[in-house]
Amino acid sequence: MNQKLLKPNELGILALGGLGEIGKNTYCFQYNDEIIIIDAGIKFPESYLLGIDYVIPDYQYLIDNQDKIKGLFITHGHEDHIGGIPFLLKQVKVPKIYAGKLAMGMIKNKLDEHRLSKATDLIIYKDLDVFTFKYMKISFFRTNHSIPDSFGIAIETPVGTICHTGDFKFDFTPIGPIADFSKMATLGEKGVLCLLSDSTNSELPEFTMSERRVGESIKEIFRRITGRVIVATFASNIHRVQQIVEASIASNRKIAVFGRSMESTLKVGLELGYVKCEKDTFINREQLKIMDENQITILCTGSQGEPLAALSRIAEGTHRQISIIPGDTVIFSSSPIPGNATSIGNTINKLFRAGAEVITHNPLTDTHTSGHAGQEELKLMLQLIKPKYFMPVHGEYRMQKIHAELAQLCGIKPENTYVLDIGQVLAFSNKGARIAGEVQSGAIFIDGSGIGDIGNVVIRDRKILSNDGLLVVIINVDLSTKEVLRKPIIISRGFIYLKDSQELVREIETQTTDFLKGILKSRKNIVQMKNELTDYLMSLIYDKIQRKPMIIPVIMNVKRQSA
Amino acid sequence: MNQKLLKPNELGILALGGLGEIGKNTYCFQYNDEIIIIDAGIKFPESYLLGIDYVIPDYQYLIDNQDKIKGLFITHGHEDHIGGIPFLLKQVKVPKIYAGKLAMGMIKNKLDEHRLSKATDLIIYKDLDVFTFKYMKISFFRTNHSIPDSFGIAIETPVGTICHTGDFKFDFTPIGPIADFSKMATLGEKGVLCLLSDSTNSELPEFTMSERRVGESIKEIFRRITGRVIVATFASNIHRVQQIVEASIASNRKIAVFGRSMESTLKVGLELGYVKCEKDTFINREQLKIMDENQITILCTGSQGEPLAALSRIAEGTHRQISIIPGDTVIFSSSPIPGNATSIGNTINKLFRAGAEVITHNPLTDTHTSGHAGQEELKLMLQLIKPKYFMPVHGEYRMQKIHAELAQLCGIKPENTYVLDIGQVLAFSNKGARIAGEVQSGAIFIDGSGIGDIGNVVIRDRKILSNDGLLVVIINVDLSTKEVLRKPIIISRGFIYLKDSQELVREIETQTTDFLKGILKSRKNIVQMKNELTDYLMSLIYDKIQRKPMIIPVIMNVKRQSA
Repeated sequence: MNQKLLKPNELGILALGGLGEIGKNTYCFQYNDEIIIIDAGIKFPESYLLGIDYVIPDYQYLIDNQDKIKGLFITHGHEDHIGGIPFLLKQVKVPKIYAGKLAMGMIKNKLDEHRLSKATDLIIYKDLDVFTFKYMKISFFRTNHSIPDSFGIAIETPVGTICHTGDFKFDFTPIGPIADFSKMATLGEKGVLCLLSDSTNSELPEFTMSERRVGESIKEIFRRITGRVIVATFASNIHRVQQIVEASIASNRKIAVFGRSMESTLKVGLELGYVKCEKDTFINREQLKIMDENQITILCTGSQGEPLAALSRIAEGTHRQISIIPGDTVIFSSSPIPGNATSIGNTINKLFRAGAEVITHNPLTDTHTSGHAGQEELKLMLQLIKPKYFMPVHGEYRMQKIHAELAQLCGIKPENTYVLDIGQVLAFSNKGARIAGEVQSGAIFIDGSGIGDIGNVVIRDRKILSNDGLLVVIINVDLSTKEVLRKPIIISRGFIYLKDSQELVREIETQTTDFLKGILKSRKNIVQMKNELTDYLMSLIYDKIQRKPMIIPVIMNVKRQSA
Repeated sequence: MNQKLLKPNELGILALGGLGEIGKNTYCFQYNDEIIIIDAGIKFPESYLLGIDYVIPDYQYLIDNQDKIKGLFITHGHEDHIGGIPFLLKQVKVPKIYAGKLAMGMIKNKLDEHRLSKATDLIIYKDLDVFTFKYMKISFFRTNHSIPDSFGIAIETPVGTICHTGDFKFDFTPIGPIADFSKMATLGEKGVLCLLSDSTNSELPEFTMSERRVGESIKEIFRRITGRVIVATFASNIHRVQQIVEASIASNRKIAVFGRSMESTLKVGLELGYVKCEKDTFINREQLKIMDENQITILCTGSQGEPLAALSRIAEGTHRQISIIPGDTVIFSSSPIPGNATSIGNTINKLFRAGAEVITHNPLTDTHTSGHAGQEELKLMLQLIKPKYFMPVHGEYRMQKIHAELAQLCGIKPENTYVLDIGQVLAFSNKGARIAGEVQSGAIFIDGSGIGDIGNVVIRDRKILSNDGLLVVIINVDLSTKEVLRKPIIISRGFIYLKDSQELVREIETQTTDFLKGILKSRKNIVQMKNELTDYLMSLIYDKIQRKPMIIPVIMNVKRQSA
């Protein structure tokens, strides 16, 4: 997308964090010296990335071109769309961030936490706002999703209009305002050059259930239950929270809230008017103790079995204020995110053991619906927007590939569909589209406060350490007299419990000493000696107990003391 | 189950490895001085058990009572039923192991690998065999499951007959012989005291699909495909393998086999007659290269996305003999085991990227069926056996709990259903049933060749090491002169990449020296100094980069050299 990639008067689309298995949702749009960015997400690391907190895209292209950046536009307030903002702002000057009301509330909190409140201007946009730059003009179309205030973004450029859906579903009976069908259809009528559309649920051959239907199911389940109701859901799904509030009111229950993110969501939701109810609908922990069990709803985090979340601690019996009483009914108003099935199962086992009934989402209970469009909804978006070109976004490679096939069913020419790899640039001119090339890109690991200081060597070492632990062998030698000066010091962690393995430790001590005595007589330097000692101990230990700890030899050259 | 637990002429049932989330499938039955064991399974560790290869039950009760053990009876050849045998035999004298033909073939291989072939007598049982001991009489009833030669076991005792189903489903059109309904019904008619029944699929409100239906679907899919077919399934599911062989023959394809366990299954299957076909149905790797793509089936392991299995390496492009050709179709004849969804998704992404089409099991494709009974089948088993008491086995707590509720629907009295915790003993006498108490029990970790030498401390250390790595700080001091003798040696692994972090390393060096100079003047001993240095460095590093590596301080007392 530098001079070499884009020609003058070409529009470039860059997938900086495009594919779900690599990074999350950062797309850049450039026309000459003007860049706008849509979303800046983080990805939660896969389990093999030991100790890594988040994964962000490599922002090098934006660092190199920061003078061109006009603004960052946010589609909605989920972490995989706003979580990267602090890390982006630490590396890149972004003059303005534009977001809807709720997303902006969440971004503000995030910037405060990172002491970045003054790093950029924050602009809240509304449905009808239009922002005009030298070449590009930005407007919005409201969508439905599992968080309020979700928008698609239209970018008018000299070569044509680009539409980016953000995350969306179609919900004909939503909680909150409905998607702006008319605006999408109008965009389609005027002509859209390229549609970028959410692929997360493209494998699902269906039209997802309405959020309102979930509310009815929950209300119905509440009606049947005696005893306390404990409901776990995603904190950011404020419409769901509103429906749980309504079900509680309808069955004469008051609500106690547990879990940090749920508490802060409710605070924001009540302040900004997304959650509507009388103030006395909520009760505190003291009131909870004295109320009749049939009058209690407990609303909490932990629907994914996250070990530190409220529900997990309640199930485990380690929550300070609340524990399961036989007769409790726990409702999971959620479905498992892939990878979490085991931890959710463990939580349910513990709830059963403690005497609770458990209701999970399934076709009979309908306690959850997805926020992402299934295949029929994806087709509807394609038919409303009627783009000439199509580029699936979000989701993993297989989902984008399937989405591209759906687009072809809806009349997009196969040669006009582009599944972009991370870092690839798609360029549009009056002559058509072409893959213009690639910019530096990839996954950057965040561990603690360091950005990108952890590479594959460190991850590989953590993997070895996690499997078999480590063994430090420290030995003092006198290189001038070629003597081993004392018995080696053996330290281990995560390998074996040394106190229970005295025999093995003595063997390692003896063999290290003998091996070094032999090798000292050769003309090897310390590095060579360390390498050979490592190999020797590695095979000794593997022969004894079939384990491969990391071996760290320390050979110190110390002059023998004069007597 | 020792004298204190069981009274004379009581029958004790002990769940030594009963609940799936703790251990796997080891049940003991004792009447006076006679013990028989059913199954000896291993569990594959959950991800938090870093570096652990397997989990087995604590066999202490069997070690203490080995003189009473008459034999180990095996229901079928899956790892969670036979995988523990080598570890059991290393600790406990078991005079005889009884198993069906296929399971015994697999047990023999296992014992050869562990050099335990002479540790016990191996006896192959057939449908009609009966083994009579002093108090107990053992017979078998054939069932259907996802591996051939699966049996339930009936134990006649002086207080009544116990039936243990093993793993089972009901399949009215199985591949291979059908379950012995008549024998189950006869047992039920004569009267069964207690049924122990497989709870794995008790959450599923259905009757599982017949294995034959899967064969038809696969045949139908094969018919539609042009280009190579690559099928991944569980190696031990020999009936499935047979059906894939038949689908290949029907569509004029020859079969190449990849993956060690698939190759050995086929060898055993062909030898013992479970797989039936002409010899020239299979082709080798050389023939594969010269054949037309429409005539090729590749049968391989890797249906769970296991990183080292054939399919994963083919998808990744790292398999030595075979890679994806655009036009290939990959069929997953399997469904994801909970916890494997992410790795399977990654494999599918790679297959798509390489240009393959991918067909997974779903209600439209029917490329897989479970080997475990759903709710309707569980009820059928209950109605055939008509036990007075009921004890769910296999599966996790929530599944056993739900299974107990199903039993109550089928007329078992609530007070006659028992969900046993690991180590609990249920005792039957002529007067009825009672929980007699608990024996020593729990999960024992296997890492390499060690049995149980890894405890929670080691696991906890591995967890810390895997998150943030380690830092070794070695410093020489002279305690007599209270001097720090040289700059400390700093070694790190899995923490940061030291070469890129010179500034932090220098800071740690300086602060360690300064801190020790200060503390040397106090009257603290080396242990106290080490602890204080650890705390000091821990907070220094956390302040700098918000990470918490394991810190290993080594303070060596060395006499200063005389000049």
